[in-house]
Amino acid sequence: MSSTKQMESELRPMDAEQLREQGHKMVDFIADYYKAIENFPVLSQVEPGYLRQLLPDSAPNSPDSLQDVLNDIQEKILPGVTHWQSPNFFAYFPSNSSIAGFLGEMISAGLNTVGFSWISSPAATELEMIVLDWLAKALKLPDDFYSTGQGGGVIQGTASEAELVVLLAARDRILRRLGRNALPKLVSYASDQVHSALQKACQIGGLNPELCRLLETDSSTNYALSSSVLREAISKDIASGLIPFFLCATVGTTSSTAVDPLPALGKIAKTNGIWFHVDAAYAGSACICPEYRHHIDGVEEADSFNMNAHKLMLTNFDCSLLWVKDRSALIQSLSTNPEYLKNKVSQENTIIDYKDWQIPLGRRFRALKLMMVLRLYGLEGLQSYIRNRIKLAIHFESLVVKDKRFEVVTARVFSLVCFRLVPPPNSQDHGNKLNRDLLDSVNSTGRVFITHTVLSGKFILRFAIGAPLTEERHINAAWQIFQDKASALLGTSYHDSAFSS
Amino acid sequence: MSSTKQMESELRPMDAEQLREQGHKMVDFIADYYKAIENFPVLSQVEPGYLRQLLPDSAPNSPDSLQDVLNDIQEKILPGVTHWQSPNFFAYFPSNSSIAGFLGEMISAGLNTVGFSWISSPAATELEMIVLDWLAKALKLPDDFYSTGQGGGVIQGTASEAELVVLLAARDRILRRLGRNALPKLVSYASDQVHSALQKACQIGGLNPELCRLLETDSSTNYALSSSVLREAISKDIASGLIPFFLCATVGTTSSTAVDPLPALGKIAKTNGIWFHVDAAYAGSACICPEYRHHIDGVEEADSFNMNAHKLMLTNFDCSLLWVKDRSALIQSLSTNPEYLKNKVSQENTIIDYKDWQIPLGRRFRALKLMMVLRLYGLEGLQSYIRNRIKLAIHFESLVVKDKRFEVVTARVFSLVCFRLVPPPNSQDHGNKLNRDLLDSVNSTGRVFITHTVLSGKFILRFAIGAPLTEERHINAAWQIFQDKASALLGTSYHDSAFSS
Repeated sequence: MSSTKQMESELRPMDAEQLREQGHKMVDFIADYYKAIENFPVLSQVEPGYLRQLLPDSAPNSPDSLQDVLNDIQEKILPGVTHWQSPNFFAYFPSNSSIAGFLGEMISAGLNTVGFSWISSPAATELEMIVLDWLAKALKLPDDFYSTGQGGGVIQGTASEAELVVLLAARDRILRRLGRNALPKLVSYASDQVHSALQKACQIGGLNPELCRLLETDSSTNYALSSSVLREAISKDIASGLIPFFLCATVGTTSSTAVDPLPALGKIAKTNGIWFHVDAAYAGSACICPEYRHHIDGVEEADSFNMNAHKLMLTNFDCSLLWVKDRSALIQSLSTNPEYLKNKVSQENTIIDYKDWQIPLGRRFRALKLMMVLRLYGLEGLQSYIRNRIKLAIHFESLVVKDKRFEVVTARVFSLVCFRLVPPPNSQDHGNKLNRDLLDSVNSTGRVFITHTVLSGKFILRFAIGAPLTEERHINAAWQIFQDKASALLGTSYHDSAFSS
Repeated sequence: MSSTKQMESELRPMDAEQLREQGHKMVDFIADYYKAIENFPVLSQVEPGYLRQLLPDSAPNSPDSLQDVLNDIQEKILPGVTHWQSPNFFAYFPSNSSIAGFLGEMISAGLNTVGFSWISSPAATELEMIVLDWLAKALKLPDDFYSTGQGGGVIQGTASEAELVVLLAARDRILRRLGRNALPKLVSYASDQVHSALQKACQIGGLNPELCRLLETDSSTNYALSSSVLREAISKDIASGLIPFFLCATVGTTSSTAVDPLPALGKIAKTNGIWFHVDAAYAGSACICPEYRHHIDGVEEADSFNMNAHKLMLTNFDCSLLWVKDRSALIQSLSTNPEYLKNKVSQENTIIDYKDWQIPLGRRFRALKLMMVLRLYGLEGLQSYIRNRIKLAIHFESLVVKDKRFEVVTARVFSLVCFRLVPPPNSQDHGNKLNRDLLDSVNSTGRVFITHTVLSGKFILRFAIGAPLTEERHINAAWQIFQDKASALLGTSYHDSAFSS
């Protein structure tokens, strides 16, 4: 037993005063982490398998002290962490922590309720209904999405789960009409820019994966789904005896934040009796700002709408918000009613049991953190935060534009800039290799982390701004790294090999 | 703006010193909550819709102060909370918070990483592999379940998700062999005591819900699945041209903690080439104690094994542990590989990307809390905690047995006691009503919360012990309430109407 251990009294499973003492220590540990966050390589530079060499191969029989564990986190875990909250994190779509979100996670973990049914913690269900109505209002969603009517909002873990549950609701709605034998004929539609969650949802739901139509897009629509392409695909499928049942439009695609034309797509969905889902996982938050709201014009025709509060809206992961117009469609697909969960209130059907709106049974009290974010920053605070992230992206874009070696590839819409080194003339392949090398070279510095995508065969760098600590100086410093690494690369490979050869 | 607001400086999205200051306040709030937890009615006594009357119908435009929000939580939210961490919570299966688990949630929320792929936070993936190997060792699981071979462990949110992903892996394994047309013929098996998650998983996976065979059990096997009943059902289905593909055995059923005979069932599964899943969501934790390990004897033949660390094992919800022998079966069902997530390490196939083992894409760093629980209590501390919960159940059972008006209905195995008021002679219906009335009467005191089940037509009271603050005095006080309420009920309905009539 180490001396640290001897000095501390044994940790009880639960004890208010011990929780207070140790909780304060942990708060300081986390505050110190944020103080030092820029000192870590933002993208962890460890090698696969690094941690197994540092930890024992069994859990300890007798307790370790909190100090021992914190030391290990500092020395062994943190070097393996990719720091999503670093101001130099520009990869994927950033997922925000905030003080309010963190406090919300704390209180939720403190209460540790499991709110599957209303009765298992009434406030968990009711607060969720209320804050989702608050946000529906902030987003100016149509009344049908409010919990006061036939619809309502629900917190899912991720957009993948949101997409899955609505796909299942749509599947079962049509199978109830046509019979189970229609399953192999059901077709879903989206652009080829749709998130991979759609294909995964089709696969999970037992749908024919070949009937998940990913319709081609290109730069002529800035990678948005063309309504004529959709209309044609549907006609062709109907003519072949197939059954269109689901359309997913995206507002803010993962590759380039493309925005599908909701009004035109919604009309087609309506005409064909297709479930119309709008995935605004990333960009939905921006639509609480009046000047961005037009991006979801047409949501009025949607059956369901999803956005992630854990992306641009300062709510700690996970917190994906889903609204549906017809909650009974979800419930008919996902409800279970075993004896051991039956209770008077549920049977009176006057309340919502969120277990029937989601894949898992149990659920955390996530509405608390969403409420804390909405109240501690206020809608104006959140709007100003989002505007500021977009402003930083505009600044980055202006830097890219000024350097002739680079080009912005797709029109920037929100806080993502898609850019690349201009490839040598007639050498897309070489250009792709060059940009891939630039990506690796930049990321290996540990001073910035970005990711990539491919659009129409072009390898593209994605610079996504979202982390709360990011300021203009971080953008400038990041851009300096891109410029330096580009110079290093172009010095040897571009000018010498491409132009000089 | 309230005066409280004026006194505080504006909350920034993220700021180390503000996080420290507000985090300390929240720790005190939560410690004070635990100090006062016995003062709240354990089962919330609010009426449906109570909260909407107390909160505004929009999110505020300008920020509220933390103190305002904490006041609202105290005055408006907490009355609507059912207090899962109260020492008087004996409903469902309790889901533990602990100091270690709470600290783990804090650090996980503080880092707020989204670890879908190894590269997105290497330590999140590697720590998960390691602590799941630690637990596999503590449970004496066969080597095939370790991440060092072809299998491995993964943290799912809930047992429902664990069950779903293995069902999908089993479904797709057989469909790869037989073709997609076999889907409507696939049959899964379990006892009628299996968790409702199985039927839900079948429904989600597009399987014919009528081919989810819930085989009848009764008191002759203490509600465990009989291997001869299973063998017969499989033979019958094969004879009808159907295709058995999945068997779920339960160790510790939800209604009565029945234990299915794994060795016999595993043999049948093996003979028939069926995926064999063992759901030990509740009771698995107990098997880290050598004297309970025999309940999972036979797990050697299983393809997958699941237990919830968030039930008896002091890890805050959610933390459901799943091990599989053949991780490639999961990955083949659940992987996606969009360009924007591609990276060198993933493509070299030397690491695990847990996104391909689960339904969602994103995932929290839950391994931290599991590590903190294992290290801050040690295996001996956890064993002693679990033994103590079971000892309390034995104590409660002894109290029930002493009161001739009551009977223990099924043999107690772990920390759940199934009991009821003995019904009047020849009056099962009246007995059921009586016990339902007793349940309502006891729960309406707010001093104890239990739930019920039905076994062979009998309405049964479930007294499940698990909350960390529960001591013998709480058991005694709870029993006193049962006795008093029984006397009140029997005084009017039992003696007077049943016996005297």
